[in-house]
Amino acid sequence: MRRLITLTTDFGHDDPFAGIMKGVILGLAPDAQIVDITHAIGPQNIRQAAWTLEAAAPCFPAGTVHVAVVDPGVGSERRPLAVQAGEHTFIAPDNGLLTPFLASADDIFELTRSRYFRKPLSATFHGRDVFAPAAAWVAQGTPLSQMGDPVENPVLLDIPQPVFMNGILTGEVIHIDRFGNIATNITRGHLADHFQEGAAQQSLRIGRGSNLRLASHYSDRAPGEAGFLLNSWDRVEVFVREGNARLHFKCEIGSPVVISLETEE
Amino acid sequence: MRRLITLTTDFGHDDPFAGIMKGVILGLAPDAQIVDITHAIGPQNIRQAAWTLEAAAPCFPAGTVHVAVVDPGVGSERRPLAVQAGEHTFIAPDNGLLTPFLASADDIFELTRSRYFRKPLSATFHGRDVFAPAAAWVAQGTPLSQMGDPVENPVLLDIPQPVFMNGILTGEVIHIDRFGNIATNITRGHLADHFQEGAAQQSLRIGRGSNLRLASHYSDRAPGEAGFLLNSWDRVEVFVREGNARLHFKCEIGSPVVISLETEE
Amino acid sequence: MRRLITLTTDFGHDDPFAGIMKGVILGLAPDAQIVDITHAIGPQNIRQAAWTLEAAAPCFPAGTVHVAVVDPGVGSERRPLAVQAGEHTFIAPDNGLLTPFLASADDIFELTRSRYFRKPLSATFHGRDVFAPAAAWVAQGTPLSQMGDPVENPVLLDIPQPVFMNGILTGEVIHIDRFGNIATNITRGHLADHFQEGAAQQSLRIGRGSNLRLASHYSDRAPGEAGFLLNSWDRVEVFVREGNARLHFKCEIGSPVVISLETEE
Repeated sequence: MRRLITLTTDFGHDDPFAGIMKGVILGLAPDAQIVDITHAIGPQNIRQAAWTLEAAAPCFPAGTVHVAVVDPGVGSERRPLAVQAGEHTFIAPDNGLLTPFLASADDIFELTRSRYFRKPLSATFHGRDVFAPAAAWVAQGTPLSQMGDPVENPVLLDIPQPVFMNGILTGEVIHIDRFGNIATNITRGHLADHFQEGAAQQSLRIGRGSNLRLASHYSDRAPGEAGFLLNSWDRVEVFVREGNARLHFKCEIGSPVVISLETEE
Repeated sequence: MRRLITLTTDFGHDDPFAGIMKGVILGLAPDAQIVDITHAIGPQNIRQAAWTLEAAAPCFPAGTVHVAVVDPGVGSERRPLAVQAGEHTFIAPDNGLLTPFLASADDIFELTRSRYFRKPLSATFHGRDVFAPAAAWVAQGTPLSQMGDPVENPVLLDIPQPVFMNGILTGEVIHIDRFGNIATNITRGHLADHFQEGAAQQSLRIGRGSNLRLASHYSDRAPGEAGFLLNSWDRVEVFVREGNARLHFKCEIGSPVVISLETEE
Repeated sequence: MRRLITLTTDFGHDDPFAGIMKGVILGLAPDAQIVDITHAIGPQNIRQAAWTLEAAAPCFPAGTVHVAVVDPGVGSERRPLAVQAGEHTFIAPDNGLLTPFLASADDIFELTRSRYFRKPLSATFHGRDVFAPAAAWVAQGTPLSQMGDPVENPVLLDIPQPVFMNGILTGEVIHIDRFGNIATNITRGHLADHFQEGAAQQSLRIGRGSNLRLASHYSDRAPGEAGFLLNSWDRVEVFVREGNARLHFKCEIGSPVVISLETEE
């Protein structure tokens, strides 16, 4: 069986760390297929890794093993986890990175059996010595229950949720992509819960921009014009057509985004 | 059969978009082998994508499926294309990106059959929802004719051609690589058409440099010295040995490059 | 048989060069599995490529073919090499890049048989025309002896070794990773040779930092505090916990690192 393994790390693309993890995986599971989700998570930015994996994992087939290594506590007592959630397996340090998947997890194990580690275990690179080998063993069919012990209290990130009050939905920026498009923590579900169907009624305010209206795609706007839409990941995204919304609105991660009914037009 | 699929996009290496496309492909075509040509095309730079794919595609084996996504019109009425040209298949938006391959295309189809799309179809990420699945279906053996309708009038880029007048061949810079080497739109064929065989007779002028002479390889020059040669892609390329020609000549994409007979030496 | 081939180059991630090498490899060896170690070696930085490959290669399984292309002499008379060292094969230009593996090499060949090259042989891209095809032929089982002639005098890098004098071990910085961690040319073996067992006795000086003490892992220090440890590659590495040691100590490649017995505490 040819299992798919994904990698999400903050190792960057310049150092050999990601390549080394692949060497370890393929030494143990020669038929695995490895896909990079990204290695450009901000150094030690656990929350960014969580959002990224939440967006990417559902696009992979059943049986995929996702390894994520953003690991400021490497070498300390922080636990390495293996999580089964539906038909996907997630392997990562117990620092909140897997928060999006824990609520629906079927099984959560701490990887305790050192016979599944690479030897000697280094103090600084558990991506190589713990997480990569674990992914390979899972890809080879090893049950998680054989690799560790159940965990009841995994670390959870405090993920900011949008707030609805007095007809106003306030969220924040969670990701800005290469094109400058601004993704928020407001989802299709939040819009449906709080506003009547009907795009024309909603108005979005961000940075120095106000009264942005819902578009169905980028080309609904003229070049240089701004709008918002539901992106490929079902989140409210602010864009400037053929432009860069990040530069235009001078936003950053955490900047507030406010949606209300448009009353004055 | 293990088909090869290449990816060329402007998604960059930081966001998870390219990884997501791979997840979709491997979900449909588990045995496909995926190779990144580059994800660093300038945002929405269709012409750069066209040159890049023109240089890279011929190095891949027969049967390869090339997917290219530089797609400012995503979500609008611009058509998704699948093109058969010789033994390669190309899948890309109909915005001129495939211009280098259209003249010799055997078949050009618009991908119209939505049963080959990922559902729900997003407004912003047809790389994931249209182009990646199409590549996977092709890799699995689906005929292009089954996936869409013939197209007669694909969009063509206006690609600048060198001009020959009064013994002077004038072209322009089309690519500058990591080393600062400057590739032009002047090919081996253009030189052969307009000048007699014999390297010594040609003189190249670019930026503040003049009278550069044809070399057969970089080491024909002393360190720090400039020259030009025919690169791995059969194009005139200006270089500074162990230096950076871009910085030296202060050139950019579109800068003029002039070749004439050397008469005064 | 599915052979593993690694790539280490200075091609960067923006140009299509690495992807092109993969196309050539997979055209000749369709079942090869290719792993990028890195393409971000500094342009023409042979020494950095040597260190990187030395750190990464041992993490790959027996039978792996490692291709490394940092090749300022491309097109000149510099020889292309294929080296068998234990159960790994290395393919690279003869410019010192393979120095870490030559002392223990079983066989060193110059790749002379042009029937194993891609035709026509370009003057500027032997990664595509010489090294990639050679790796593919090796992966397909071609003996090195069939591809070239034995070499007795490969080029060797002058790799700086730490010096021990008057109780003081002086080495230098050889790599700084994305997190700012500073790796040196001082190994676990050097420490064992020159100092008694016992971490408390050693004191490290670097840049404007002094009296750093050996830690067993990053979390041995408080956030913002500096220390040194033996990294995943068995080298002395200077770090600032949850900080950036490069910025903190203002170091660069080649900066001196001094370890002595701590006598005054």
